[in-house]
Amino acid sequence: MEGKLWGGRFKGKIDKNFERFSTSIRYDYKLAKFDIYHSMIHILALKEANILTSDEYERLNQALENILKDVEEGSFSYDHSSEDIHTDIQNKVNNIVGNLGDKLHTLRSRNDQVSFDEKWYCIEEIDQFIDILKDLVNVFKGLCRKFKREFFIAYTHTRRAQIITFKDYMDTFSRMFNSDKERLSSLRRREKVYIGSGAVAGTVLKDAYKKAIKIFTNKRGFNFIPIEVSSSPPFNVSNRDFIIEFLSCLAILQMHLSRLCEDLILYSTQEFNYFILPEEFCTGSSLMPHKKNPDFLELVRGYTGIVYGNLFSLLTTMKGLTLTYNRDMQLDKEPLFSSVEIVKEELKIMTEFIKRIELNKNTVEEALKDDSLYATELVQFLVFQGLAFKEAHKIIGKIVRYCEEKRVSLRDLSDEELKKFHVYLTVANLKKIMNPRYVVSLRK
Amino acid sequence: MEGKLWGGRFKGKIDKNFERFSTSIRYDYKLAKFDIYHSMIHILALKEANILTSDEYERLNQALENILKDVEEGSFSYDHSSEDIHTDIQNKVNNIVGNLGDKLHTLRSRNDQVSFDEKWYCIEEIDQFIDILKDLVNVFKGLCRKFKREFFIAYTHTRRAQIITFKDYMDTFSRMFNSDKERLSSLRRREKVYIGSGAVAGTVLKDAYKKAIKIFTNKRGFNFIPIEVSSSPPFNVSNRDFIIEFLSCLAILQMHLSRLCEDLILYSTQEFNYFILPEEFCTGSSLMPHKKNPDFLELVRGYTGIVYGNLFSLLTTMKGLTLTYNRDMQLDKEPLFSSVEIVKEELKIMTEFIKRIELNKNTVEEALKDDSLYATELVQFLVFQGLAFKEAHKIIGKIVRYCEEKRVSLRDLSDEELKKFHVYLTVANLKKIMNPRYVVSLRK
Amino acid sequence: MEGKLWGGRFKGKIDKNFERFSTSIRYDYKLAKFDIYHSMIHILALKEANILTSDEYERLNQALENILKDVEEGSFSYDHSSEDIHTDIQNKVNNIVGNLGDKLHTLRSRNDQVSFDEKWYCIEEIDQFIDILKDLVNVFKGLCRKFKREFFIAYTHTRRAQIITFKDYMDTFSRMFNSDKERLSSLRRREKVYIGSGAVAGTVLKDAYKKAIKIFTNKRGFNFIPIEVSSSPPFNVSNRDFIIEFLSCLAILQMHLSRLCEDLILYSTQEFNYFILPEEFCTGSSLMPHKKNPDFLELVRGYTGIVYGNLFSLLTTMKGLTLTYNRDMQLDKEPLFSSVEIVKEELKIMTEFIKRIELNKNTVEEALKDDSLYATELVQFLVFQGLAFKEAHKIIGKIVRYCEEKRVSLRDLSDEELKKFHVYLTVANLKKIMNPRYVVSLRK
Amino acid sequence: MEGKLWGGRFKGKIDKNFERFSTSIRYDYKLAKFDIYHSMIHILALKEANILTSDEYERLNQALENILKDVEEGSFSYDHSSEDIHTDIQNKVNNIVGNLGDKLHTLRSRNDQVSFDEKWYCIEEIDQFIDILKDLVNVFKGLCRKFKREFFIAYTHTRRAQIITFKDYMDTFSRMFNSDKERLSSLRRREKVYIGSGAVAGTVLKDAYKKAIKIFTNKRGFNFIPIEVSSSPPFNVSNRDFIIEFLSCLAILQMHLSRLCEDLILYSTQEFNYFILPEEFCTGSSLMPHKKNPDFLELVRGYTGIVYGNLFSLLTTMKGLTLTYNRDMQLDKEPLFSSVEIVKEELKIMTEFIKRIELNKNTVEEALKDDSLYATELVQFLVFQGLAFKEAHKIIGKIVRYCEEKRVSLRDLSDEELKKFHVYLTVANLKKIMNPRYVVSLRK
Repeated sequence: MEGKLWGGRFKGKIDKNFERFSTSIRYDYKLAKFDIYHSMIHILALKEANILTSDEYERLNQALENILKDVEEGSFSYDHSSEDIHTDIQNKVNNIVGNLGDKLHTLRSRNDQVSFDEKWYCIEEIDQFIDILKDLVNVFKGLCRKFKREFFIAYTHTRRAQIITFKDYMDTFSRMFNSDKERLSSLRRREKVYIGSGAVAGTVLKDAYKKAIKIFTNKRGFNFIPIEVSSSPPFNVSNRDFIIEFLSCLAILQMHLSRLCEDLILYSTQEFNYFILPEEFCTGSSLMPHKKNPDFLELVRGYTGIVYGNLFSLLTTMKGLTLTYNRDMQLDKEPLFSSVEIVKEELKIMTEFIKRIELNKNTVEEALKDDSLYATELVQFLVFQGLAFKEAHKIIGKIVRYCEEKRVSLRDLSDEELKKFHVYLTVANLKKIMNPRYVVSLRK
Repeated sequence: MEGKLWGGRFKGKIDKNFERFSTSIRYDYKLAKFDIYHSMIHILALKEANILTSDEYERLNQALENILKDVEEGSFSYDHSSEDIHTDIQNKVNNIVGNLGDKLHTLRSRNDQVSFDEKWYCIEEIDQFIDILKDLVNVFKGLCRKFKREFFIAYTHTRRAQIITFKDYMDTFSRMFNSDKERLSSLRRREKVYIGSGAVAGTVLKDAYKKAIKIFTNKRGFNFIPIEVSSSPPFNVSNRDFIIEFLSCLAILQMHLSRLCEDLILYSTQEFNYFILPEEFCTGSSLMPHKKNPDFLELVRGYTGIVYGNLFSLLTTMKGLTLTYNRDMQLDKEPLFSSVEIVKEELKIMTEFIKRIELNKNTVEEALKDDSLYATELVQFLVFQGLAFKEAHKIIGKIVRYCEEKRVSLRDLSDEELKKFHVYLTVANLKKIMNPRYVVSLRK
Repeated sequence: MEGKLWGGRFKGKIDKNFERFSTSIRYDYKLAKFDIYHSMIHILALKEANILTSDEYERLNQALENILKDVEEGSFSYDHSSEDIHTDIQNKVNNIVGNLGDKLHTLRSRNDQVSFDEKWYCIEEIDQFIDILKDLVNVFKGLCRKFKREFFIAYTHTRRAQIITFKDYMDTFSRMFNSDKERLSSLRRREKVYIGSGAVAGTVLKDAYKKAIKIFTNKRGFNFIPIEVSSSPPFNVSNRDFIIEFLSCLAILQMHLSRLCEDLILYSTQEFNYFILPEEFCTGSSLMPHKKNPDFLELVRGYTGIVYGNLFSLLTTMKGLTLTYNRDMQLDKEPLFSSVEIVKEELKIMTEFIKRIELNKNTVEEALKDDSLYATELVQFLVFQGLAFKEAHKIIGKIVRYCEEKRVSLRDLSDEELKKFHVYLTVANLKKIMNPRYVVSLRK
Repeated sequence: MEGKLWGGRFKGKIDKNFERFSTSIRYDYKLAKFDIYHSMIHILALKEANILTSDEYERLNQALENILKDVEEGSFSYDHSSEDIHTDIQNKVNNIVGNLGDKLHTLRSRNDQVSFDEKWYCIEEIDQFIDILKDLVNVFKGLCRKFKREFFIAYTHTRRAQIITFKDYMDTFSRMFNSDKERLSSLRRREKVYIGSGAVAGTVLKDAYKKAIKIFTNKRGFNFIPIEVSSSPPFNVSNRDFIIEFLSCLAILQMHLSRLCEDLILYSTQEFNYFILPEEFCTGSSLMPHKKNPDFLELVRGYTGIVYGNLFSLLTTMKGLTLTYNRDMQLDKEPLFSSVEIVKEELKIMTEFIKRIELNKNTVEEALKDDSLYATELVQFLVFQGLAFKEAHKIIGKIVRYCEEKRVSLRDLSDEELKKFHVYLTVANLKKIMNPRYVVSLRK
C-alpha cells in the first residue's frame, strides 16, 4: 500500500484492476485549485495549533503556492497513477519539500477535503452561470428592441393561435433564462463552504480553523466566498444536496434550451421559414450537397438527455445511502462536471447564435394575412357588442369552417354573406379588426 | 360537440375512445377550489368591464360560493363525464343559474385557468410542507434533548468509524429536513399566481383584473398569496418550471427520507440492534409467525422510485416543446399530485414514528467498548506528542491489525506489548483516551 | 390485528395512518383473477397433501369459482378496508364458507402469490400487446398499399433530404412497431409462472403442486401459460426483472409513438400540410374559435414522460435491495399498471387514427418540384460519368447556392448557365434526372 | 469548410466554438475498427460497380488494412482536429494514397456508417458480456459446490426469515446473472448489421453491396456477424433501438450487481459478520487507521446511478425526434460506451472478488441457534398434526412473543411451559424440528 494515504492496517497488495477502477484522478483533477485552498487553510490551522512551526508552514505554503500557480496558468498536469487529486497534490508537495510534505495531511480527512472542494467549485461555477445568463438575457432584450415594431405569430399546439409582437415572443425566452438566473442565485445565497468535518466526527482544530479562515480570506480577497468551520460534521460529509440542486437547476435550464432549439429548428424550415439561421453554426451533408442542417440546435436539444441523465444519476446514487460517507458518493463528480461543462458551452454559443439569427419579415407579413389569427378578436368584438361569449364563439367558429370549405378568405366575403352569420359582421368592421396593429393595441 | 367549451368549428363527433383518453377530470378535480377562485376574480373583472351587470355578477358569484362551500366541506363531487375541472365547474354553475352560466367563460381561456390553478395549488402545498417539516425537525430536536447525554457510533462505508454524541447523529437528520424547508421556502418566495394570460396573447381585461384582484384578496383575506396580472402571457402559458422545481425539491427530500429509512432499517436489525421500532408501524408475515418487519420504512424507501420517476416524467414531457401551450402539458398533474400526496403522508407518519423509536442503550454501551473506535484519537494523541501524522497513522494501523490477528482487545495489552509499537502508548494513556466522554470533549 | 393474515405475534394495534399508507388494494385489485388461480392450484395441492378433505376442497373451490365469475363478468368489487387483494379474496371466501376459509392460506405466503399473480398478468398483457401491434402494423401496411404509387419527402435534420416512396415512409413506422412486437415476443418466450416459493424458502408441497398444476391447466385449457413449481424460491421472491423488462419494452414502444406523433403534428401544420388529421381526434379552443388542435398526438407524445418515469421508478426502487423480498417491491404495481394501460389505450386509438389520416397529394406534388431534392441524384449522375465524388458534390453544392442567391429554379437554368458548372449538366439531362419516378427507380 | 466532407454549398467559415462543440472524435474513435470494415465493404462494392478500378481498389484497401492493423495493435491514434472518426479515417487514407482517397467516400453517407459501426460494436460487446457472465455464473456455481453442506439464513425485509442452504443463497445470484446472459442473447439473436442506407433513401449500389458483403465476410471469417443490405433505409438511419435495448439490459444487470453489493456490504459488517471480504479489494481511511472499507462494492453500487442515467439519457434524447436522422442522435455514443465499459469492468473484478470471499462459518453456526428461524416449520408441524393453519400461526406467534418478553430461548422451555401453548409442542418434538438439516430436508 505504498504511496496510499491509508496504508498501515493492510498487509497485502491492492488488486490492480480494482485500483484502476477506483481511482478518481481522471476527473477530480478539476478540483485541484480548491484542494490547494483547503491545504492552505489547513496548514494555517496546523501552525495556529503549534503542530507546524512557522518555518515548516512557510515551506509547505510555498510549495502549495507553486502548484497553485501551475493550476492558474493552465500548466498543471496530474499524475495518472495517483488515486485522486488529494493524493496527487500531496505527492507534488512531497516532491518539492520532501518528508515535510507528510505533515500536510496531519489530522485531516479526504472526506472533508472533497466536500470543501466540491462546494467551492459549485459556487464558482454558479457565479459564472449567472454572468453568462445575464449576457444571454441581454441578447434577447437586444432583439426585442431591434424588432420592436414587428409582429409575430403565437402558436399553441404547434398551430397558429394569435398575433403578438415579436418582442412578446422573444421576451418569453428572456424570462425563461432570467428565471434560471434567479433559481441559481437563490441556491448561491443558501450555500457555504465548510471545513473541519474530519472523516465524520469533526476536528480538534476548530479554533485554529476559525483563525486560519480569517487570515486566508483576507489575504486572498475571498470575502465573497462564505467559508465556515463545520458545525455538523456528519451532515457535511453525508451531504451532496447542493450538487443535486445545482444539477436540477441545470436540468430546468436545459429544458428551456431544448424548447428554444425546437422553435428555432421549426421556424427555420423551408416550410415555416420565419428565421434564417447563421450559416457558421450549421453543417452540410457528406452525401447530399444541398443540405444546410441546424446541427447546433439539434445537438443542444439532444444534450437534454445527458443533462437529465446526470441529475437522475446522482439522485439514484444517493438513494438509501446510510449515514454518513459512502464511497458511492465519489461518483457525484462526473455527472456534475458533465452538466456544468455542457450547459456552459451551450449557453456561450447560443448567445452568439441568437445575435445572428435573421427574421424573415416577408414570411411573417404573409402569415399575418391569415384570417384565423383574428378569430379571437372577432369574438371579442361581438362580446363587446353585447353577445354572449358562447354565441360569439360559435358564430366565428362557423365562419372559419365556411371559409375553409369554400376555400375563400374571410376578407373576401361580402356584407351579404357576412350578415348571414351576424349583423355586426360587416366588411368595414372586419377591416378595422383584422389588423395586427389594432389587435395588439387592444391588450395594452 | 355538445357541452364542450370549444365546439363551433367542428362538424363531426369526437371519437369516444379518444374522448375518454383525453379527459383530465379524474385527477384535475383536485384543483376545484383554485378554479373557483379564478372564476370569482374573472367575474369581478367582467363586472368592472361592464360585460356583466351587477345582478348577473351576484348570481354567478353566489353559484360559485355554493360550489366552493361544497369543496371546503368535502362534499364536492365531480361528474365523470366532464372533460376537465373547468368544464365541470362551468356545468355546475349552469345547473344553478341556467343560461347565464355561459357568460362565466367570456373572454377566458383554460390555458390561463390551469396555470393559475396549479400555481396556487403549489403555493398552498408548499406552505403545508413547510409546517410539516418544522414539526419533523422539532421531533428530531426533541430526541437530541432527550438523549443529550448518550453517545453513538458514527459509521462511514457502513463500518464503525468514530464515537459521536447521539445528538450529533440525530442532528444530521434535523439539518437535512431543515434544508428541505429552506429549499421550499426559497421557491415559495419566488412564485406568484398570474391571471389574464388568455390563451397565449393576454387579455383586454387587464385593468379590470387589477381591480378585481384587489377586491377579491381583501374580501377573502388572501393577502399572503401574491396574485398579479400576467405581464408575459406567452411565458405564463408555456411555463411549468415551478412544478418541476417543486418536484425536484420533493425528490431531494425523498432522498433524505430514503437515507433515514435505510439507517433505521439497518440499526433495528437483530444484528445491529441500536433501535427498537414502534410495533404499530410494523407488520408480520402471513407465513412466518415470528416476523416483525419494518414495512413503513421499506415503503418510504421504495417510494423513492415513484417520487424520482415523477420528476423525470415531467422533465421528459417538457423537453423540446415548442412555445407556447401544448396539450402534452396536461400530463403535469398526475406526477405533481402523486409526489405531493406521497411525500406529505410519509412526513406525517414519520413524525409519529420518530417520536416512538427507542434507543437500545445496552447495545450502544457494548459497541463503545470496540477498540477501533478510538483509533483516530490514538493517532491524534501521538501527533500532539510530536509524531508525524503519517507515522502515527501507521503505528495505530499496525496495532489494530495485531489485535485482530491475536483476537485480543487493545485494552488488554500490557505496557510491555504496547511499547513495541510506541513508547507513548501506555496502559495509562490508553485508559484515558479510550473513553467516549474524553473523545467527544476533545472536539468542543 | 384482527383480520390480518399475520396477527399472532403482535400485541398493540396498527397505526391507522400507517395502515392506510401501506394498503395496496386500491391498485392490486387488478390481480384478482390471477390470485384466484393461485388459490385454485393451492387448494388442489392441499387436497393432494391430505390437508384438505375432498369435501373441504370442493366447498373452497366452489367459493373461488363464484368470485372468479364476478371478476370475469366485471361485477367484482373489492373492499377498501382490505390490506391487499390476497386478504380481500381470503375474506370473500370466508364470507361464503365460514371458518373453513381459514384453511385456504395454509402453508402459503403472499410473497409467492404476488410473484405468481404479477407474472401471469404480464404474460396475458404481453399477449394482448402482440395482437394490438399486429393490427397497427397491418394498418400501416394497408396505407402502404393504398398509396403505393405516391412519392414522399424524406427529411433529415427536419430538412428536406431526398425523395422516397410514400410506402417507404410508412414502412418505417411499420417496422418500428413490428420490432416492438418481436421484442415483446422474445420476453414472452423466456418467462414462466412459478408457484411454491413460500415466503422465501420454498415449500413442503412440491410434489402436490406438480400434480395440482397439471390438473388445473388441463381443466381450464391453460396450456399456453407455462406454470412450474419454483426451482429457486429465493430467486423468485426477489425477482421483478420481468416487470422491468416489460416496462423497458413499453418505453421503447412509447418512444416510437412519440416520434410518429411528432411527424404527424409537424406534417399536419398549415405550413407543412402533408396530412389532414381526422377531426374526431382533434379538439378546439375555449377561447379561439378557429383552432383544430392535434390533441391526441400531443397527449401521446406527452405520455412519454409518464411511461419513461414508470420504468425509472421501478429501476430505482429495486436498486440496492438486499435479498430477498422487501416491502419496497410492493411499489412495482402502480408503474406497471400505469404503463400497460396508457400504452395499450394509445395503440388502440392510434390504430383508428392512422386509418383515417388523409394524404394531401397536392402539397406533396408541390414539394416534389423542389430542386434540392434531386441534388444527391445529380451528384450520382456525375459520378457515373466518371467524376470523383468529392468534385461532383462540390459542383452541385455550388449550383444549389447559385440558385438560392439568384432566387431561380435549377430547372430554369439554360444550357449556357449550366455548363459553367459542368459540361454534363444539360437541360436534357436535368429533365431526365429531376423526376421522382426516375429517382426512385435507380435504387431498385 | 476545408477538410469537411460536406463543404461545397457553404460560403462562410464555421464558428470555432461550435466546431469544437460538435465534434465527436473524442469518443467515436472507439468505432474505428468497424468504420474500417464499412470502408472495406464499400470499396469492394465500388469496384463491383466499376466506379473503382481494381488497382484503385487495391491501393485503397491496402491503406485501410494498414490503419486496421494499427487499431488491432493498439497503436491507432486519432487526430483531435478531425470532426469524427469517419473523417479521421478518410484523412488517414488520404495521407497514404493521396487524392485517390477522396474516392473512398463516393456515394456514401455518414448516416449509414454510424449505424453500421454502432450495430457491429454492440454485437461484439454483447458477445463479450455473454462470455464474462458465463464466468461469473460459474464462480457462483463453484461456491455452491464448495459450500454445499453449509446452511445459511434467508432474510426478508432485512430480517431473519428461514434457514436455507448456502447453495440456495448463492444460486439466487447465479440465476440473476444467468438471466442477464439470456436477455442479452435474445437481443443478439434479433440484431443484424445493415449497410447501404445512404443518407436516408438507400443506394444505387444494392447489388454491388450484396456481392461485397459475401466476399468480405468469407475473406475475414466473419460469418458469425450477420451483415445485410438495408431493406428499409429510413428505418435504419432513424433507429437506435438496439442501443436502448442494450442499455436497458445493462441497467437490469447493474441492478443485480447493486443488490449483490448491498448483501455483501451488509453481511461483512462487524455486526452481521457472515463474510470476510478479500482485503485486496478494500481500502482504508486517510484519517482513521482501523478502517477496512468495502470500496469496490460501494463503487459498484454507486455506479447504478450512472448506468441508469445512461439509459434514461438516450431514451430522452430519442423522444419525439422526427424521422429520420437528426444530429441529436450523435449523443447516443457516450451513454453507450460509458455503460458498456463500466459494467464490463465491474463484472470482471466481481468475478475475482467473489472467488475470494470467505464464509464465516462460526457466525452462521451461531445464527442457526436463533429459535425464530424455526417458527415456520413449527407451524407446519402443527398443521400436519391437523391444526388449522391460522390457529397454528397464532400459537407460534404467541410463543415467540413469550420468549422475547421473558428473554429466554424456546429450547429452554420445559414441557410444562410448552403445553400451555399446545399439547403437541413437547421438548422432544422441538428438538427434532429445530434442526437445520431436518428443516431443509422437508422441502426436498
